[in-house]
Amino acid sequence: MSVLYGERRVAFQDDRPPALLLDLDGTLIDSVYQHAIAWHKALELGGIRLSVWRIHRRIGMSGGLLADSLARETGRELSEKDAAKLKRAHARLFAAQVRDVRPLPGALDLVRHLTRCAWHGPSRPAARWRGARPLLTLVNIPPGVPVITRDDVAHANPIPRPLDRGRRPARRADRIGDCRGRQRVGPARRAAGARTRVGLLSGGYGQTSWSAQGPTGSMKTRPDLLLHIDELGIRAE
Amino acid sequence: MSVLYGERRVAFQDDRPPALLLDLDGTLIDSVYQHAIAWHKALELGGIRLSVWRIHRRIGMSGGLLADSLARETGRELSEKDAAKLKRAHARLFAAQVRDVRPLPGALDLVRHLTRCAWHGPSRPAARWRGARPLLTLVNIPPGVPVITRDDVAHANPIPRPLDRGRRPARRADRIGDCRGRQRVGPARRAAGARTRVGLLSGGYGQTSWSAQGPTGSMKTRPDLLLHIDELGIRAE
Repeated sequence: MSVLYGERRVAFQDDRPPALLLDLDGTLIDSVYQHAIAWHKALELGGIRLSVWRIHRRIGMSGGLLADSLARETGRELSEKDAAKLKRAHARLFAAQVRDVRPLPGALDLVRHLTRCAWHGPSRPAARWRGARPLLTLVNIPPGVPVITRDDVAHANPIPRPLDRGRRPARRADRIGDCRGRQRVGPARRAAGARTRVGLLSGGYGQTSWSAQGPTGSMKTRPDLLLHIDELGIRAE
Repeated sequence: MSVLYGERRVAFQDDRPPALLLDLDGTLIDSVYQHAIAWHKALELGGIRLSVWRIHRRIGMSGGLLADSLARETGRELSEKDAAKLKRAHARLFAAQVRDVRPLPGALDLVRHLTRCAWHGPSRPAARWRGARPLLTLVNIPPGVPVITRDDVAHANPIPRPLDRGRRPARRADRIGDCRGRQRVGPARRAAGARTRVGLLSGGYGQTSWSAQGPTGSMKTRPDLLLHIDELGIRAE
């Protein structure tokens, strides 16, 4: 069947309208490596020495979880105050690199197409709105598109229901992400109605690590994704 | 049998003395992510836009091969002059980050132990001596330890015979590296008498990608490596 969704007629496999949950960092924006370097410096300032690759594997987590998890790896417990200080240092060090951060290939086209379909905007809750704004600007997220940030929810993971604050309900939500770190919260995410349907390579984690984690959809790059968008129940251009 | 090697008696599985070829970036030094970011900026200055993860996968290559390979990905051919310019830009942008680069955990202990065994120094030919000097200092490579850099060889890959310039011959050479990129030149490396015996996770490529490429030895972190050093025919402390 198909229903009118925004201004376009969209075909669905069932009668529930789809929502797409797109991560921001690493999915629309090529910022994972700058985040890893920023966390590396922030942790060192906080007296925590860790190799960058160990940080890279955790970039998908919220700042709070990441800080706890990394501190645990070095056998430390972080106080709430220390964790907050660490997150502020990371935000500052990442902001210092934002001028070198670019949209990922195909992200602009994908956003342009989905915007025409009245899509639900980036759901990545790991960056507070203030921090996310320059990134959202990079991929031309138009005003009015709902964006879920860390401010909207009590905890970034497990994923919040994407329907807080009176947004249009969508019983099926397909997540598109880049990162096995986020994949780890799959069961909770699925319980909230969101399945990771498409795993992207852009986080730098390798195809084999995705296959082992088993996203339910295919591994694609963003230009591929736009070519196959109808497989998510959204009409192609 | 065992032979006197340097000042220590070292046990070998056969009568050929072992040489260890240790990569520098990503193996002794935690510099892979800074290299990826530096290449990303250098390429953009040269008009080549590529996602950082695509660069990350190629960090093990020599500068020349990496530039050619990345340019080809965007459908361009690089002139010799353009490639040289790109390499100079990368060296400059990496040097700007060197103050944030640290030794990998266990690297200092490993170098200390191997130095006592009169080991052959880092073989990674991807950085010219000038660029490598601050990194070698980070892990306390003592004066007199032979270091093979890009200046010693006509081409960085396939690996040069580690025995140029009158160094002590070793018929068996075991390589320790972090990166599947370098693993790809395995057959040529093996023809030169070097096998990749130990694959490390520190390059950020994931255990599964190593397993798929099949290093002949185990996957270990550096502290593990020192614990298992006798498996390479070198006496433990």
